[in-house]
Amino acid sequence: MASASKVFIAVIGAGGVGKCFLGQLHALAARRTTQSINLGYISSSKKAIYNNDYSPIPIDTAAQVLAQSSQSPPTIQQLAEYLAAAPDKVVLVDNTSSQDVADSYPLFLQKGISIVTPNKKAFSGSYSLWEDIFTSAEKSGAKVFHESSVGAGLPVISTLSDLIDTGDKVTKIEGVFSGTMSFLFNSFAPTQGAGGKWSVEVGKAKALGYTEPDPRDDLNGLDVARKLTILARIAGLPVESPTSFPVQSLIPKELESCTSGDEFLEKLPAFDEQMEETKKAAEAEGKVVRFVGSIDVASKSVKVGLEKFDRSHPIAALQGSDNIISFYTERYGSNPLIVQGAGAGGEVTAMGVTSDLLKVLRQI
Amino acid sequence: MASASKVFIAVIGAGGVGKCFLGQLHALAARRTTQSINLGYISSSKKAIYNNDYSPIPIDTAAQVLAQSSQSPPTIQQLAEYLAAAPDKVVLVDNTSSQDVADSYPLFLQKGISIVTPNKKAFSGSYSLWEDIFTSAEKSGAKVFHESSVGAGLPVISTLSDLIDTGDKVTKIEGVFSGTMSFLFNSFAPTQGAGGKWSVEVGKAKALGYTEPDPRDDLNGLDVARKLTILARIAGLPVESPTSFPVQSLIPKELESCTSGDEFLEKLPAFDEQMEETKKAAEAEGKVVRFVGSIDVASKSVKVGLEKFDRSHPIAALQGSDNIISFYTERYGSNPLIVQGAGAGGEVTAMGVTSDLLKVLRQI
Repeated sequence: MASASKVFIAVIGAGGVGKCFLGQLHALAARRTTQSINLGYISSSKKAIYNNDYSPIPIDTAAQVLAQSSQSPPTIQQLAEYLAAAPDKVVLVDNTSSQDVADSYPLFLQKGISIVTPNKKAFSGSYSLWEDIFTSAEKSGAKVFHESSVGAGLPVISTLSDLIDTGDKVTKIEGVFSGTMSFLFNSFAPTQGAGGKWSVEVGKAKALGYTEPDPRDDLNGLDVARKLTILARIAGLPVESPTSFPVQSLIPKELESCTSGDEFLEKLPAFDEQMEETKKAAEAEGKVVRFVGSIDVASKSVKVGLEKFDRSHPIAALQGSDNIISFYTERYGSNPLIVQGAGAGGEVTAMGVTSDLLKVLRQI
Repeated sequence: MASASKVFIAVIGAGGVGKCFLGQLHALAARRTTQSINLGYISSSKKAIYNNDYSPIPIDTAAQVLAQSSQSPPTIQQLAEYLAAAPDKVVLVDNTSSQDVADSYPLFLQKGISIVTPNKKAFSGSYSLWEDIFTSAEKSGAKVFHESSVGAGLPVISTLSDLIDTGDKVTKIEGVFSGTMSFLFNSFAPTQGAGGKWSVEVGKAKALGYTEPDPRDDLNGLDVARKLTILARIAGLPVESPTSFPVQSLIPKELESCTSGDEFLEKLPAFDEQMEETKKAAEAEGKVVRFVGSIDVASKSVKVGLEKFDRSHPIAALQGSDNIISFYTERYGSNPLIVQGAGAGGEVTAMGVTSDLLKVLRQI
C-alpha cells in the first residue's frame, strides 16, 4: 500500500474546534490498523507540548496536559525546523484563525509538511499568499486541504474541486454562507409569520451564542466575503482580496465607531426602521430578504449583501442557522447541485478537518 | 510524490455513460502534467480494442475505432490476466450495468487492479459479494470507488463515508433516489396546482426519455432499493439484498404479466383511480405524496415506497428530475446535511466516475 505506516501530527490551537478535533483524532487513531497516527506536537497561543525525541503525546489527555504545561510555544521558524526533522511524514493541523500561522504555510509546505485547516485567513488573504501556498505544495508534493474554511464540514470545497477537476464549467455559485446571518434572517423575515424586530433578533442571536462577541464582526459581511474569495479563487477567478468586491455591511454608518458590542446593541434599535423598510419592500413583491453571497464566473463578478427571494426558493426556506450553497454548472443545467446543513459549530468544523486529514493520510 | 507516473486505464462499456466518460478522460489526460494516463483497453459487449504490447489507444477516437473493430472481447478471466501483466498500475473502469462484470470485481481486486464504476450491481447484490469485494481490496491495497452508483455525480457516497470515517453517528438517511420517480411525482402531485393523471404522466416521462424502455423497470422500486442497499451497507447495516426489506411497487398486480412496456402503458389508465385516491388522501392532510427511500440505522429498518410530506418540506419542493438525500446524524442534530441535484444523465454520472478515478490516481 502507498500510505506511510507512521504519521506525525502537529496541532496548533486547542480552543473550541481544536478540542473537538482532538476527540475525533483520538477515536481515529484507535480505529486505525494499517497506519499509526501519533500526536507529536500541540500548542495554544501561550503553551506547547512536544518532546525533543519526537516521542508521542497521549491524545486523550493532550488538552488537559497542555493547559497545565509550563512550556512556551516555539517560534514558527523553530516549529518548522522541529517538524522538518521528524522521523515520519508530518501533517500540521492549524485549528486557529491566526493570520500569522496562515502566513507561514508556504514555509511548512516547502519543507514537505502537509497542512489541513479550517483557518480562512490563508486562503482569503492576499492573492500572492494563495499562489505561494499552492506553488509551495506543488513543488514539495506536500498536501494542503481546507474544507472547513467554507461551510464547516459540509462538502463544499471538495464538491467544487470535483466539478472543476472533472472538467465541468461552473457558471455561478450562490448561497447563504454564514450561520449567524442565516439565523438572523430566518427569524427576522421568516417565510411564514411576521418575524421580530431587527435589533431584537440581533440581541437574541448574541444571547444564544450565534454571533461573535461583538456582533459587528458578523454584520460587516467580511466573514462571508472571505468564504466567497476562497470559492471564487478555486473557480479560477484571481480575486485580489475579500475587500476587492462589493460587500454590503449591515452596520449603520453611525454605529461603526461604537467602542463595544454592547454599546452597538444598545444603539441599534434606533435603526430598526431601515431594516423594516427593506423587509417590507421584499414582502410587497411576495418575497423575503436574505443575506447572500454570489459568484458569477462568466462576468467575474463577486458580491455579498441583501437579496430578495421567492418564499418557495431553497434559500428562503432555509432553517435555523443552516448554510446553503448552490452550484450552477454546464453539466447540471438549470437545476443547481445544492449542499445544505449546519455550517458552523465545533464538531462539524472539526469533522471537515478530520476528513481532510484522512485524505492526506491516503495520499502521503 | 507518492503517485505513480504512468497509469493504465481499462474501460468496459461504451454506451451513454461510457462515451461521456471517454470525453472527460480525454480532457483529463490532456491537462495532466505529473502523471501520464493511458487508455490501454476498451470494450463493448461485442467488441474490444487492446494491444498485446500494452501500447496506448488514442482516447479521442476510441469510441469510433471500437465501433469499427472486428476484435471480440476476451473472457473476464483473460482480461484479468492481461491487465495483471501490464507494466503500469491499472485502473479498471466498469461503465456497464452488467452483473457478470460486477461478479468479477474480487478477481480484479485480488490482482491489485483498482476499480471505479457507476455499476450498482456489485454493491447491491448478495452481501457475500460485497464482503468479497472489500476484503479483496483491503488485502491487495487496490482501491474501489463507486460514487455514481447512488445519485450519479452528487457527493452522496463520499459524504456518507466522510461522516462515518470521522466518527459521526448516522441515525437516518432519507430521500428521493430516482430521477424518474422525482419527475413523475413532481408532475403528478405538484406543491402548487392540480397535476396530471398518473398514466398520462408515466406516458410523458417515457416519451421524454426519463424512464427505462419498459417503465415498469422504474415503477417496481428495485432501482431505489438497490441504492438504499448500498447506503445502508456503508452505514453499517449488513442488508442481505435489495429484496430483503419492504419495497412498494407501483405496478398494479394485474399488469405485472403484461408482455411489453407498451401493453402496460395501454392498460395503465384503468388503474388511475388508485393513485388518485393516494394523492387525495395526502391533500386532505395538506400534504403531497412522494416516492422515497429511508434507512433508520438504530432500528435497522430500510424501506422504499410512497410517503406524505408537508408542501414546505425539501422533499416536496424538489424540481424536475432532481434527487435529494438527507443525512441525519448525531453531529448535525435536528437539521440534516442535504445534498440535492440531478441524479441521472450521462455527463453527471460520468463525472462521478471521473472524480473517483482522480481519487484513485492520487492514492496509487
